[in-house]
Amino acid sequence: MDLKIKIRGYHTDLYRHVNNARYLEFLEEARWQLVEEHMDLNDFLNSGLSFFVVNINISYRSPAKVNDIIIVKSGRSKINNRSAVFKQEIINKTTGKLCIEADITFVIADNTGKAINLTGDILESLNKIPCIE
Amino acid sequence: MDLKIKIRGYHTDLYRHVNNARYLEFLEEARWQLVEEHMDLNDFLNSGLSFFVVNINISYRSPAKVNDIIIVKSGRSKINNRSAVFKQEIINKTTGKLCIEADITFVIADNTGKAINLTGDILESLNKIPCIE
Amino acid sequence: MDLKIKIRGYHTDLYRHVNNARYLEFLEEARWQLVEEHMDLNDFLNSGLSFFVVNINISYRSPAKVNDIIIVKSGRSKINNRSAVFKQEIINKTTGKLCIEADITFVIADNTGKAINLTGDILESLNKIPCIE
Amino acid sequence: MDLKIKIRGYHTDLYRHVNNARYLEFLEEARWQLVEEHMDLNDFLNSGLSFFVVNINISYRSPAKVNDIIIVKSGRSKINNRSAVFKQEIINKTTGKLCIEADITFVIADNTGKAINLTGDILESLNKIPCIE
Repeated sequence: MDLKIKIRGYHTDLYRHVNNARYLEFLEEARWQLVEEHMDLNDFLNSGLSFFVVNINISYRSPAKVNDIIIVKSGRSKINNRSAVFKQEIINKTTGKLCIEADITFVIADNTGKAINLTGDILESLNKIPCIE
Repeated sequence: MDLKIKIRGYHTDLYRHVNNARYLEFLEEARWQLVEEHMDLNDFLNSGLSFFVVNINISYRSPAKVNDIIIVKSGRSKINNRSAVFKQEIINKTTGKLCIEADITFVIADNTGKAINLTGDILESLNKIPCIE
Repeated sequence: MDLKIKIRGYHTDLYRHVNNARYLEFLEEARWQLVEEHMDLNDFLNSGLSFFVVNINISYRSPAKVNDIIIVKSGRSKINNRSAVFKQEIINKTTGKLCIEADITFVIADNTGKAINLTGDILESLNKIPCIE
Repeated sequence: MDLKIKIRGYHTDLYRHVNNARYLEFLEEARWQLVEEHMDLNDFLNSGLSFFVVNINISYRSPAKVNDIIIVKSGRSKINNRSAVFKQEIINKTTGKLCIEADITFVIADNTGKAINLTGDILESLNKIPCIE
C-alpha cells in the first residue's frame, strides 16, 4: 500500500525539513490505509479490540522539503505471540532517496486494555496483510 | 492569566514563523489554565458539561520566531444567553509587538450535546473569570 | 477545488471530534491545492512573494468523528487593494451536515515582508481562482 | 532536567490517551531545555552547526490521560565518533508509572549538512550535559 503526500509549508520546521513528529502522522495515516484494505476495521473495532503501538524505531535517512513528493510504503513484518511489527519506508520521489525507515511494534488489546494472544481469526487477518515489497 | 512560551523549531514552519494552527494550541492551553484558576474543572466535567468552541476570530499581527518569548493573555469577554466569548492576546516579548488577537466564542453543552442557557451557577462561575487587563 | 479527507484517530481529541487546530491544517492543505491549480506557484515563490494569512474567522458548525469523510471546498472571495479573502467550507459527507465555514484573509508580501498592492499580474492571477460553488 | 506537563484534551486522541506523535514534541521540548541549560545555543547556531536526529527508538509503556501530570526526564547517554544519544523518560506522576522510554540518536551537522566528528570543543560541551539520574 503506497500513500503519496506532497510536502507543504505546515509540515516543515525551522530547518525547512519535515519535522520528526510529523512523520509519525504520515506513518499512522499509511497504516490505517493498509489495515483498512485488508481487514474489516468496523467489525474489529466493534468487537472491542484496539491496536496499541508499543514501540517505534524510526531512522531519519534524508530530509524532505516543501514541494517534494514522498511515498509511504507499509507492510506487515514479524508476528510474535502477543505483538507484531509493521515495516514502513518513506521514499522521497523528488530526490530519489530513502527518507525514513521505521519498525512499528504493536499489540492488540481487548476492551479491558490487555494485550491478547495473536492466534485464530486475528492471526489469520494479520497474515493477510502483505509484506512491504 | 499569563502563559509564557519560548518558541522552538518544531513550532515554526517554512517561513520560520510560528505556524497558524500552532497558535490555536497555545490559545487552548492558555484557556485551560484560565478556566482552571477560576472554576472547579473536575466538578464541571463530572456534571457532564463541556465547553464547545463555535467560532474563532484570530488576527495575525506580527510573527514570532525561534527563541522569541511570547506571553499569552486570556480573559472573559461578553456573556450572551447561550454563548460567551474569551478574549486572548499574544505579546511577543522579544520584539515588544502584539502578535495575535483572538475572540473565542463558546457554548457550554450538556451530555446530550445541547448548548445550555448561561444562567444560575454557570453564569456565576463565568462571571468570576476576570477580563483581560 | 474539493479535498476529501477520511478522519483518523490522530485527528481527533478528548471529545472524539476533530480538534480545532487540526481543521486549520485541513484548510491550509486545501488552499495550497486550490492555488496550485490556478497559479504557477514556483514562479510566484521564486519572485520572492509569499502569502501571509492576517485573519482567520472560522465557525465550527457540527463535529466530524473518526471514519467520517469530509470534503473541503475552497474558493476566492473578495479582493481588496492590499488584502484578499479565501472562503472555505467543510461538508461532513457522512452526516450530510455543514461542519466548518471559514474566511481566510491574506496579503501578498514581497521579500522585505511588506504587503504589496494587489494590481496587475497578481490581481489577474487571483481573479482566475474560481469562487466556491 | 525535568519538564512538567499537564495533559490537555488537545494532546489526546481517539483512545483519550496522549497521541504517539505528540510525545515526540514533548521530548523535543525537553531536549531544547536540557541543551540550553548546558550549552550556549546562540553561539552554537551562529557557528552554523545544527542538531539532526537520525534515529528515535521510543517505547510506549503506559498511557497518559487528560489532567495527568507527566515529568519528562532527559540526559546524555553514549557519545560515539560522529553520533551521540540522548536518553529520555516520561513518568506519569498521576499514576506513578513509567510512561515513555526513548533513545534519541543525533549527529551535529555543519552548514553544508555534513555530520562532523564529535571532538574538541563540541565533545567537551556534550560531555557537560548530565546523564539522566
